[in-house]
Amino acid sequence: MNPVIGILGGMGPGATVDAMQKLIRNTPARKDQEHIPMIAVSIPDIPDRTQCILNHSPSPLKKMVEYMRILENAGVTCIIIPCNTAHYWFDDLKRHTQVDMISIIDATCQQVTEQHIRHVAILATTATVRGEIYQRALASQQVDCTLPTSEQQDAVMNSIYAYKAGDIAQARTLLLPVVASLHQQGVAKIILGCTELPLILETEVSTTPDAYLDATDALIKKAIDWYYQQVTHPPVAA
Amino acid sequence: MNPVIGILGGMGPGATVDAMQKLIRNTPARKDQEHIPMIAVSIPDIPDRTQCILNHSPSPLKKMVEYMRILENAGVTCIIIPCNTAHYWFDDLKRHTQVDMISIIDATCQQVTEQHIRHVAILATTATVRGEIYQRALASQQVDCTLPTSEQQDAVMNSIYAYKAGDIAQARTLLLPVVASLHQQGVAKIILGCTELPLILETEVSTTPDAYLDATDALIKKAIDWYYQQVTHPPVAA
Repeated sequence: MNPVIGILGGMGPGATVDAMQKLIRNTPARKDQEHIPMIAVSIPDIPDRTQCILNHSPSPLKKMVEYMRILENAGVTCIIIPCNTAHYWFDDLKRHTQVDMISIIDATCQQVTEQHIRHVAILATTATVRGEIYQRALASQQVDCTLPTSEQQDAVMNSIYAYKAGDIAQARTLLLPVVASLHQQGVAKIILGCTELPLILETEVSTTPDAYLDATDALIKKAIDWYYQQVTHPPVAA
Repeated sequence: MNPVIGILGGMGPGATVDAMQKLIRNTPARKDQEHIPMIAVSIPDIPDRTQCILNHSPSPLKKMVEYMRILENAGVTCIIIPCNTAHYWFDDLKRHTQVDMISIIDATCQQVTEQHIRHVAILATTATVRGEIYQRALASQQVDCTLPTSEQQDAVMNSIYAYKAGDIAQARTLLLPVVASLHQQGVAKIILGCTELPLILETEVSTTPDAYLDATDALIKKAIDWYYQQVTHPPVAA
């Protein structure tokens, strides 16, 4: 079976497209046929991840499993999820599939290690922050984390919802003061731990890339490594 | 069955992502869950469409049918193909599926009619131009077509291949003089009849949108119309 990357998307749709875009741009292909095969399921009726974690509203797990099954039946051999908050259910999802899965949290924390970063700020959904998804992973690496204040975190969350609603101007108005405040506190690296954030901060990331660690970018680079490893060292059939 | 748009992509991968991006941007959604469900199969090992039409190299039809089958099995209820040249096989593909299909050529020509355009220039792959895919459709609407000269057409084709190889600068260097020449001839509207062209001419299209008719954009707007028609007037079960 040829390696095919499956994207469990729709959380949100814009972030799904951003992940695909980054996969294409980071692939050293000279023609269509050299690009990495991928299948994306972007059916966005998956219940809101943040609302579930914070307010116990309906869980997204059932739908995520259902759409992961579509990817498996379509023949993908690795699944990635361009949504940080959804990784709250990563271990549950892993139990439902036989194919490889790459965690966006692991991919990002691996970059923190490889870049010898000792201190980061975390920008993410309120659920990712309160669920301590990044903090726990980074604590085991002895990395210090700065978090936005409670008011700033509300602004980050509202910025993400504004982006999902198509209001990029409002998303930027809400987010930029938080970013400025983190920079003023002397934070040298900000983890963009929600896949909408690199879209909201597109200008800032392209101007000062070293100030950010884009989780989508980390995930995609790991997925590309996975792909070329499969192609050059295919797993031995059982 | 809920309506789901299937994208037979990978021709090329960048154009697939552009189509998805345009679908998202043109959808009046206020949150993730209101976006249009889509599944994209972007497995780019489909043989080169232009080479097949011009030089009788292997046909892409078999692979296209195979990947269309993946979309059908995944539950899509409409298939679109963000590749103009692939529409050379549109009728063949239609015979292989029970689900709706929307033609990028029909969608574009419909916009020509609705905008009361009497004269266009056609920028497309050499196969699309020599196969007269657009010219025949537009002749029936009494629309005059201006085509690039043979040398210019070579530049257009090489520009498209340069973009597919990731060399955007070279793609622009090759294409911009052809566009300038068409404008100098007094052409008021240029059909971007290859899905890489709006990506190569992104700056020009955003600066002077009225000078271009982007086929991907036309296809996506028709797909969105199709979706809302299904949602508000679901087909009666047989």
